[in-house]
Amino acid sequence: MTGSIDVVALAGALITQESVTPARGGVFDVLEAAIVPLGFAVDRFVVGEAPDGPVENLLAVRGSGGPHLAFAGHLDVVPPGAGWTGDPFVAEVRGDLLYGRGAVDMKGAIAAFVAACATAPDSGTISLIVTGDEEGPAIHGTRALIDRMAARGIRPDMCLVGEPTSTTRLGDMVKIGRRGSVNIWIDVPGRQGHVAYPHLADNPIPRLVAILAEIDAIALDQGNAWFQPSNIEVTDLDVGNPATNVIPAHARARLSIRFNDEQSGEALVARIRAVVDRHAPGAGVRGIVSGEAFLTPPGDLSALVSGAITHVTGLTPELSTTGGTSDARFLSAVCPTVEFGLVNATMHKLDEAVATADLHALTAIYAEVIARAIRR
Amino acid sequence: MTGSIDVVALAGALITQESVTPARGGVFDVLEAAIVPLGFAVDRFVVGEAPDGPVENLLAVRGSGGPHLAFAGHLDVVPPGAGWTGDPFVAEVRGDLLYGRGAVDMKGAIAAFVAACATAPDSGTISLIVTGDEEGPAIHGTRALIDRMAARGIRPDMCLVGEPTSTTRLGDMVKIGRRGSVNIWIDVPGRQGHVAYPHLADNPIPRLVAILAEIDAIALDQGNAWFQPSNIEVTDLDVGNPATNVIPAHARARLSIRFNDEQSGEALVARIRAVVDRHAPGAGVRGIVSGEAFLTPPGDLSALVSGAITHVTGLTPELSTTGGTSDARFLSAVCPTVEFGLVNATMHKLDEAVATADLHALTAIYAEVIARAIRR
Repeated sequence: MTGSIDVVALAGALITQESVTPARGGVFDVLEAAIVPLGFAVDRFVVGEAPDGPVENLLAVRGSGGPHLAFAGHLDVVPPGAGWTGDPFVAEVRGDLLYGRGAVDMKGAIAAFVAACATAPDSGTISLIVTGDEEGPAIHGTRALIDRMAARGIRPDMCLVGEPTSTTRLGDMVKIGRRGSVNIWIDVPGRQGHVAYPHLADNPIPRLVAILAEIDAIALDQGNAWFQPSNIEVTDLDVGNPATNVIPAHARARLSIRFNDEQSGEALVARIRAVVDRHAPGAGVRGIVSGEAFLTPPGDLSALVSGAITHVTGLTPELSTTGGTSDARFLSAVCPTVEFGLVNATMHKLDEAVATADLHALTAIYAEVIARAIRR
Repeated sequence: MTGSIDVVALAGALITQESVTPARGGVFDVLEAAIVPLGFAVDRFVVGEAPDGPVENLLAVRGSGGPHLAFAGHLDVVPPGAGWTGDPFVAEVRGDLLYGRGAVDMKGAIAAFVAACATAPDSGTISLIVTGDEEGPAIHGTRALIDRMAARGIRPDMCLVGEPTSTTRLGDMVKIGRRGSVNIWIDVPGRQGHVAYPHLADNPIPRLVAILAEIDAIALDQGNAWFQPSNIEVTDLDVGNPATNVIPAHARARLSIRFNDEQSGEALVARIRAVVDRHAPGAGVRGIVSGEAFLTPPGDLSALVSGAITHVTGLTPELSTTGGTSDARFLSAVCPTVEFGLVNATMHKLDEAVATADLHALTAIYAEVIARAIRR
């Protein structure tokens, strides 16, 4: 126990440091100033170059020996957009809510974890893994922090990611994994010509239609205990032919596949390529895997976090793998990882706001997680 | 026999009157001045308003009683475009060729027919049906001339349209009909959403793909003695979704159908609408019929024109229904109609040009057609 921190004030101080992704400087200064008095040894480093950087990262460790709990998060935020009631980078409490970009995603959760550390027993090891690029390309963010930890021999036993996982009430959902995501671009070439003389042209659209009809008929899997079935969506079609009497030279489509841990991104690209090749040899197929599926199967860590949530809120959280990807995809390769944080209703939206009561409750939950995790 | 006209000089005089569609005024003055001395009674009238008009038309008649041969054509031209070697609206003979916009499509043919009339026997009836809008919307062109003829009780027994139907040598092709043409726009609505939550969205693309797969499998007919099989081409696909993680709200396609006389434009639209309704009730289907298929079955008129061509050139022309539509679609409803004119290789192109020898040969062919047609 090292003292007490006003979680609302700290969240406000972090919000007031504008930090649209990628983040560096001031917002890290505020965090460092808050954790050094709590006994953390702070390691800040900047990596990368434009356009994916430079990115600042912070690795802070307190204590030694096991058990070792890591808390991971990010200080960068998405751009505010136009139309806020107030200044998105001036934190403001109005009624029961604290407003500002990053209030829930996720400066509020970082403030809550720091405030929880201020009252935590001095036992085991706590580390903070905080990046300035989770919302951007994420090339030089959490991956660089994991490299840094490996180089320094820092190996947590478990990791809690503070992403806003709650949906309608604080504590209603914990994420134990996420689906993977891959986008695939298909480009079927043909030969342009006049519709009155189709034998002189080669329309690529029927081949693309045949490809997409076969893809639409694919059922990748049935899902499993912890994942929905993998799903393919065709998200765009593009020919771009303004002339009613012209057979076009290209037909293009774009797919988005969200997949569970029974699939892999590269295997899915190969499977789509095989379908395309069957109908249109020589067509272009380009896949970009945003992230593979990952899962920390329900066990000690999810039970620990769920127990802490129930202890504070009375709720039993759902263990879920829904939604988009997160930096937990990198951390889950290091140690058991779960995600739990604030209510995500306003994240990435105008007038992002967090209930001040939720900040206090999250601080209490994180304190309970720390107490249960580092109890010897 | 009323004298002699220099067909190259008359074609040049018509070319030098700039007449990008819709045409009025000067180019008609030149034509009127050429035909009044030949005994034609000239009726010129202007119809329509912007944007489809005003359009000038000319109806000229010589003689009375049968047989009655009509010659139809247009004095408007398509825009020249940039990059001509000379001035597209200053006729110029260089070597064996007469250059200028409209040289083959179709001021040259009009000059040839007028020159043929100058040497024709004074027997039967010859009429000239000449519009200033064949290349544009064609709303106030040949249709208005047909109305005028009906109002005045002018009923030709046969009609020769002077469109450039020859392909590589003057006399190698006569058109006895044309396919019809209809464009159809399909718009399948859905409900936009995030690809991570497909159950909250409704992707319209799979329905459009199913529609197009069924359409691609349609064989409309096998063609017949005088027409190719009718043909459906999908000419455009459009979703316009830049976001890889968004399920789009609309998916659109455009079809172009070129069809023979076993089909009708409206029936084709209804058939496509039925396919669409089966997969996507409520989807939009909009059809625009550019022209129905038409045919003057091979008979007296095609034999007469072919005989004249063989007499002058030694060639036996192919009787064809290929290519785009023409004003013959309106005239064929009035009387047997065939199309024959210059070599179309340079029509609508830069440096449009006609061989002066072809102008003389075409004059001889048209004179032979007149002689055979109005012989009592």
